[in-house]
Amino acid sequence: MDHRSPGFEGLLREAILRLRRFYQTEAEVLVLTASGTGGLEAALVNVLSPGDAVLAVTNGAFGQRWAAMARAFGADVRVLEYPWGTALNALDVEQALRSNPDVRVLLTTHNETSTGVLNDLAQVADVLNALRGERPLWLVDAVSSLGAVDLPMDAWGCDVVVSASQKAWMSPPGLAFVGVSARAWEHVALASCPRYYWDLTAAREYVQKGQTPFTPALSAMYGLCAALRSMTREGLPAIVARHRRLRDQLRVGLRALGLRLFADDVCASPTVTAACMPSGVSAAEVKSEMARHGVMVAGGMGAFKDQMLRIAHLGHCSPSDIEQVLDTLREALACVGVAQGRAI
Amino acid sequence: MDHRSPGFEGLLREAILRLRRFYQTEAEVLVLTASGTGGLEAALVNVLSPGDAVLAVTNGAFGQRWAAMARAFGADVRVLEYPWGTALNALDVEQALRSNPDVRVLLTTHNETSTGVLNDLAQVADVLNALRGERPLWLVDAVSSLGAVDLPMDAWGCDVVVSASQKAWMSPPGLAFVGVSARAWEHVALASCPRYYWDLTAAREYVQKGQTPFTPALSAMYGLCAALRSMTREGLPAIVARHRRLRDQLRVGLRALGLRLFADDVCASPTVTAACMPSGVSAAEVKSEMARHGVMVAGGMGAFKDQMLRIAHLGHCSPSDIEQVLDTLREALACVGVAQGRAI
Repeated sequence: MDHRSPGFEGLLREAILRLRRFYQTEAEVLVLTASGTGGLEAALVNVLSPGDAVLAVTNGAFGQRWAAMARAFGADVRVLEYPWGTALNALDVEQALRSNPDVRVLLTTHNETSTGVLNDLAQVADVLNALRGERPLWLVDAVSSLGAVDLPMDAWGCDVVVSASQKAWMSPPGLAFVGVSARAWEHVALASCPRYYWDLTAAREYVQKGQTPFTPALSAMYGLCAALRSMTREGLPAIVARHRRLRDQLRVGLRALGLRLFADDVCASPTVTAACMPSGVSAAEVKSEMARHGVMVAGGMGAFKDQMLRIAHLGHCSPSDIEQVLDTLREALACVGVAQGRAI
Repeated sequence: MDHRSPGFEGLLREAILRLRRFYQTEAEVLVLTASGTGGLEAALVNVLSPGDAVLAVTNGAFGQRWAAMARAFGADVRVLEYPWGTALNALDVEQALRSNPDVRVLLTTHNETSTGVLNDLAQVADVLNALRGERPLWLVDAVSSLGAVDLPMDAWGCDVVVSASQKAWMSPPGLAFVGVSARAWEHVALASCPRYYWDLTAAREYVQKGQTPFTPALSAMYGLCAALRSMTREGLPAIVARHRRLRDQLRVGLRALGLRLFADDVCASPTVTAACMPSGVSAAEVKSEMARHGVMVAGGMGAFKDQMLRIAHLGHCSPSDIEQVLDTLREALACVGVAQGRAI
């Protein structure tokens, strides 16, 4: 398919229309050819000028990565840091913003993929709305949440919300989505960070004619549209409820295997769960044992690389998938000498 | 497939190994998740510092785009511009470099997709090699040439060479390739343009462990490896000869239809041919007529948008494809009232 043809225009318009429903926004949602990190970079360089004060709230690898990226583009980054496995506290965010009144941009991670923690952004929204005119621009990394977790962009007042095709959207990796509020567009006009490939103004202009500025990841677009149709049939409330049920089923099962869960129930992610390995057990070994039986899970990140397994349960995922994961994990643990969480 | 798994490592290593053979280089070739323009941006931001003097040689839309991109990143861009449809002259490049001894980076387009002109970079290589120690870093846009046209990166002394999956590599769009010479890596260490997603140093480090820093466009990687195996079986000399024959066959056929070709034979691209429409005939109309018969061609770009057709003949393309294009074009021209290049 020619990406400057009516056929592609149809695909792009359908994708954007359906994405906006899941974003729960009247704002524009733009589609970029990149992985999620590219979308996060696009969000930054379109609203930032070098020297801008940024507050980055971090509680894991992806929050830290976004803060490092803002630093790379010359921002004056202040970090509100939480230990891995814990969630942000909106009152701390409020306090940090009051102590740093020059902060122009706030970075938050909705779902921290490295730890399986979902941050409560509804509370952050309340804090920001109470700040009224002094509120910073609010950028949200929703790469591994949106489409599986409720994130009403307009109701919460998020300004830029980033997601990526290979997560809840069940599509091949290669497409990033960036929702941009009317307030964010005002900042885009003033932001002086250099940009070309990530230029959201150009992307917005091309959408008017049903195109992207540069060659899009066309085959991923077909997948995306198919997935969005299926998601539309299921409906957001049902999708959100299903992901919660899958999470709860998995957590019960992991605990029954005697495993400690890295995140508390109160902030447990509906899309990814991190289980701690018993002392002396290598996550990498368990992971490859499971892979031999056709079940792909991830190890930990950073300091926890070999100490935890991360199990994704987003997108096309059902209770029987969770059962299969638990069965395979039980066998894999037995293979490496663990029964019911106790080293044998 | 997990992109942090031995399976992906195998795919990535195979792709890079085979790409390097077509690049004819001992240098590193890195794979990024982006379209070609993203690869061109990566090339710039990794070797440039704001204020650097750049000589951009342009003879069409894509050369102009790269120059505009360098300007966006703060370079002091001098342009050696040729009319659309003509090729660069290496003696002018030499003259421009001698008159601008502060130029640190030279940008050239190997194959100008907007006009169907192939620039003779062997002659540019001779000029640069004669400059010895004073030669600038040489960046080459080979998006629509490499893999179909001979471009011996090491023998010619190119420093950064960019290509993209959807062109001669016959794969889904979404992957860009960047070959980086040892000399270029020295510049990378000094270049101060901000970068994160495009950071080639990070990409190089991750390749050591068989990974990419961020989620790769995995499904496109499968396609790429399949295409590279097929290309390896055919062999570069045969591929290069086949593209020349397809070009010549198409040019003879287009002239037999009475159409003027936009590029002279001496600089005619082996991968894309631009044919001028007879006066009063809309390229868009002819294009949609051809599309109705299943043949996709492109219109012109810029000022030539509705005045020319651009016909791609790269990758999986055979003499019978060219015949089909010519037959369909003949019928489409007749439909819009043209016979043998004369309006009826």
